Amino acid sequence: MSVQHIHEVKISFGDCDPAGIVFYPNTFRWMDATFHDFLRQHGGHAALCRQMGATGVGLVDAGAQFRSPMLDGNLLAVHMEVAEWGKRTIALSYRGMVGDRLAFDGREVRCVFKPTDTGMTAGDMSELKALVGG
Amino acid sequence: MSVQHIHEVKISFGDCDPAGIVFYPNTFRWMDATFHDFLRQHGGHAALCRQMGATGVGLVDAGAQFRSPMLDGNLLAVHMEVAEWGKRTIALSYRGMVGDRLAFDGREVRCVFKPTDTGMTAGDMSELKALVGG
Amino acid sequence: MSVQHIHEVKISFGDCDPAGIVFYPNTFRWMDATFHDFLRQHGGHAALCRQMGATGVGLVDAGAQFRSPMLDGNLLAVHMEVAEWGKRTIALSYRGMVGDRLAFDGREVRCVFKPTDTGMTAGDMSELKALVGG
Amino acid sequence: MSVQHIHEVKISFGDCDPAGIVFYPNTFRWMDATFHDFLRQHGGHAALCRQMGATGVGLVDAGAQFRSPMLDGNLLAVHMEVAEWGKRTIALSYRGMVGDRLAFDGREVRCVFKPTDTGMTAGDMSELKALVGG
Repeated sequence: MSVQHIHEVKISFGDCDPAGIVFYPNTFRWMDATFHDFLRQHGGHAALCRQMGATGVGLVDAGAQFRSPMLDGNLLAVHMEVAEWGKRTIALSYRGMVGDRLAFDGREVRCVFKPTDTGMTAGDMSELKALVGG
Repeated sequence: MSVQHIHEVKISFGDCDPAGIVFYPNTFRWMDATFHDFLRQHGGHAALCRQMGATGVGLVDAGAQFRSPMLDGNLLAVHMEVAEWGKRTIALSYRGMVGDRLAFDGREVRCVFKPTDTGMTAGDMSELKALVGG
Repeated sequence: MSVQHIHEVKISFGDCDPAGIVFYPNTFRWMDATFHDFLRQHGGHAALCRQMGATGVGLVDAGAQFRSPMLDGNLLAVHMEVAEWGKRTIALSYRGMVGDRLAFDGREVRCVFKPTDTGMTAGDMSELKALVGG
Repeated sequence: MSVQHIHEVKISFGDCDPAGIVFYPNTFRWMDATFHDFLRQHGGHAALCRQMGATGVGLVDAGAQFRSPMLDGNLLAVHMEVAEWGKRTIALSYRGMVGDRLAFDGREVRCVFKPTDTGMTAGDMSELKALVGG
């Protein structure tokens, strides 16, 4: 069974723009918060990074399709699923639901970034996979 | 008895800055979200503004004292209270608690802004007071 | 010749996360700001929407690839180009440069949303194309 | 002569809320960005903190009065001034101007936070004062 997680967000006035709907970059903020809420069940981002000797579980790619507008007062449930464990990447898929209405589809590709003498490198993903039970 | 409301926020990685603690402007974002969550019990900001012929219940003053750091993973409970109903203002006081630890004290002064021929004016506060049961 | 625009952003401490690099949703905030800065040369989003009877020039799709980290103090130049004028969509491509280093590639697909009796519809794109000289 | 700094911000659509004016917490984001832009002239927050053995130059108090609305497209000039060098605090005053119109007055009180065996302490302010030529 694949790794899954749900994170709820109460959308507020200040998340919305002059058109009266959610300012779209917030969608990515909520996808990120869902991933970090998932990591929290396994100790949280900071503790996991210490265990792996990593700087962060950061982004190389992100995208979303906006299916229907999100509004002030909506209770958004962000459903996350690990779509693929790659050798050096983890691909995550997201679905944002307001009740039974689809608000957005999203995806993220992340790496475990580790410091090297000259900069950063993407570490082997098997470590994170083992730590979060993937 | 005074008007009170509590709003909970799960603090996430992206709410924090390179010092590893909450980037302080987010505190005001959460105070605002608490006020709007309170309005929602009485129809919400948009509906209340329509009833009053107002553009918004906006800010004239805001401030906060930061008492202890807020961190990724903290569950923040923002306690709001109406401190004073003025003739043309409402003063709100806030306390941000992480468990039984005080994270911040805050306050906002808001007006009901109404359009005029030449701009905006602060309307009589008695309308909002009646609508939210103050 | 295609429609192009450049918008500069001075990256600040508060745009960065505990890993010390830009919190990625800000990338989308800056892409959006670049598009709106482009619209400003043609009257701005609000005036253009009034001319078209539209609610907003909103998103249906957005994505980015993160090529190198963005840091506090970096001067980011976001290069925007209209990639395609569709019948009911406009596709925009973005490149974020810090000096001569590529920080991110991005894209947005937007529609001109117009109110209908029952909700919203994506209007013909020829109107916006004419207004911004595409 | 007191220490002064000016930082310019181009206000965008996404900085504004459904009432069509700037969402007020952004004001604090721009005050913070002005302070960090000032520090940059003296090496930047990260380098200064390394020199002082500090975690951050963080907030203990912040406030603002909102004098006139800020809108999409406004060019905001944030004028910062060191109001007072205290023993363990620095008080900053801000004025946000859109052209010759006052948009907001603000203030921040900051400390140089240093790690101790049991948590954090506010360090002597004379170090920062010397480093930034106050």
